[in-house]
This record gives sequence, structure tokens and C-alpha cells, in this order.
Amino acid sequence: MQSNVSNGILNNWLELANIGAAINHRLEEALKEEPGLSLNEFYVLHFLSLNDEKKLRLQQLQERVGLSQSALSRLVVRMEAPRCGALRRNVCEDDRRGVYTEMTELGADKLERGRRIVEQVLEAAVRSGELPAELQSFMSRGAVGNAGSEGNAGNAE
Amino acid sequence: MQSNVSNGILNNWLELANIGAAINHRLEEALKEEPGLSLNEFYVLHFLSLNDEKKLRLQQLQERVGLSQSALSRLVVRMEAPRCGALRRNVCEDDRRGVYTEMTELGADKLERGRRIVEQVLEAAVRSGELPAELQSFMSRGAVGNAGSEGNAGNAE
Repeated sequence: MQSNVSNGILNNWLELANIGAAINHRLEEALKEEPGLSLNEFYVLHFLSLNDEKKLRLQQLQERVGLSQSALSRLVVRMEAPRCGALRRNVCEDDRRGVYTEMTELGADKLERGRRIVEQVLEAAVRSGELPAELQSFMSRGAVGNAGSEGNAGNAE
Repeated sequence: MQSNVSNGILNNWLELANIGAAINHRLEEALKEEPGLSLNEFYVLHFLSLNDEKKLRLQQLQERVGLSQSALSRLVVRMEAPRCGALRRNVCEDDRRGVYTEMTELGADKLERGRRIVEQVLEAAVRSGELPAELQSFMSRGAVGNAGSEGNAGNAE
């Protein structure tokens, strides 16, 4: 039944998924150590920072981070709790849909430290030569334009 | 704080994650319709088919599919239940670690139909021109070699 010829594109896809999972794992581990964020928490702060007012509705964050409503809600509650303190709930009285979360100064600080870590991990992966040439070339693209920065972070949930 | 220059590699990574999530979503939807598998169920069958005896220990499957022990265990129980019937439990009496799951004929049939669907979705994504040139080139690689076919399927869990 198995045909290696017809499996070509599936194998390429699995190779890509595999590389993505390995790098995600490294990002998780590195961020946990410093500044003490999960990868999804980092993405929450990153997408908030792209908003001019540094605040977003949960629905907007959910679309960007790519989590289910309940998972994102749990994440934000955790990040608003004093133990993390990276986010602050913001209820707008004259807008019934107006429950926002916004970044605190501590959150902004964690994000900045997190960005340095994430860039180090990604740059190390590109420099290591472990990526297929096409991916290395894609990841090494200059910072001209910012395709993807508004997209979601690709969570499966 | 936000620097678009230093965000270059992070944006590339987010773009990649975003494309991966969109294609994963299409694969999930297409497989659900026909042959009625989740993407992880498809991966379980695919990795089993790569084993000469078409059977693997749960631990081996777990590494390949990239799920946690509990998630993989739930998945396999569901696939062994009569309602799905794609897998069959196999307990080897003279090997204490010997709990395997193996593919049934129905499972092999579902896998074959699933492979056609997966290839169609992936080929359509490549042909659509929506992928960045580097990724299109990577995905279009010939079927020579089979890098990645032994790896895991890149689940976050």
C-alpha cells in the first residue's frame, strides 16, 4: 500500500512539521528559563505590543494567538494574576463588549527580554545548518515588510 | 520597545507557523469528511504503516506522533473501539513491555484514502501560489529520500 513516490509531498510536510516542533520545543524551554514565560504567553505579549494602545479584546487575541476561547481565557487570567503580573484587566464601562487586557510595565519588560531569547534561539537554528536550504533561506529573509506579524501563532488548538 | 528590524526573524517564524496552522486546519477538515479521521489519527496510521509489522508500542507511537502519553493513549483507545475499528490491541504474553497496537484492514483502507486526501490538500496548497517561494520549493521536492518520514508529526502537546 505504501508508495514512497506518492508519499513525497507528505514526507516534506512531515519534515517541516518536525522542524517546527523541535524549534517550538527549544523556544518553550528557553523562555521558561528567562523571562519565565510559556511560548503562548510570549505570543500574547508580542501581539499586544503590535497594537497601538497595547490592549486587545480577548476575541482579538484569540484570533492572533490561535488558541481556543477557553484556553486563551485561562492563559490571560494567569497572566493577570499577581504572581505573573504581565497583564492588567481593563473594563470599559461605556462599551458592553469592552473587556480588554493590556500589558503592564512588567509585561513589557518580560516581552523585551523574551524577544531577545526568541531571536537568539531562531538565529542559532538558522546558523546551525540543521534547516533544509529552502527554510534557511526563508528564515534569513531581511526584516523588510512584516508579513505574518499580524497572523496567528499557529497553535493547533 | 518594538523594533521591526530586530523582529525580522521572529516575523518570519510567525509567518511559517501561520502557514503551517492554516494547512493543518485544512487537513483536519478534509480528513474529517473522508475517511473520517482526525489528523492525529491519520498520523498514527501513517507511522504504523512505516513499521514492517504494521504494529508499534504506544511509547514508539507517542514519539513519532508527538503527543503526550495520555493524549496518545486516549487516541489509540478510540481508534481500537468498534466505532472506529482502525486499530487492534495486541498483547504479547512473553514480553512484559509487550502492549502493541496494530492496524486492521479497515485501518489500512482508511489510511490509503486519507493519504490521497492529504496529498490533494498539500498539492493544492503548493499549486495555489499562496506559499512563499522558498516553502513552495521545499514542498515541491521530489520524493527521492524520505527525510522526515520517521520523525514526529509536530504536535505541540
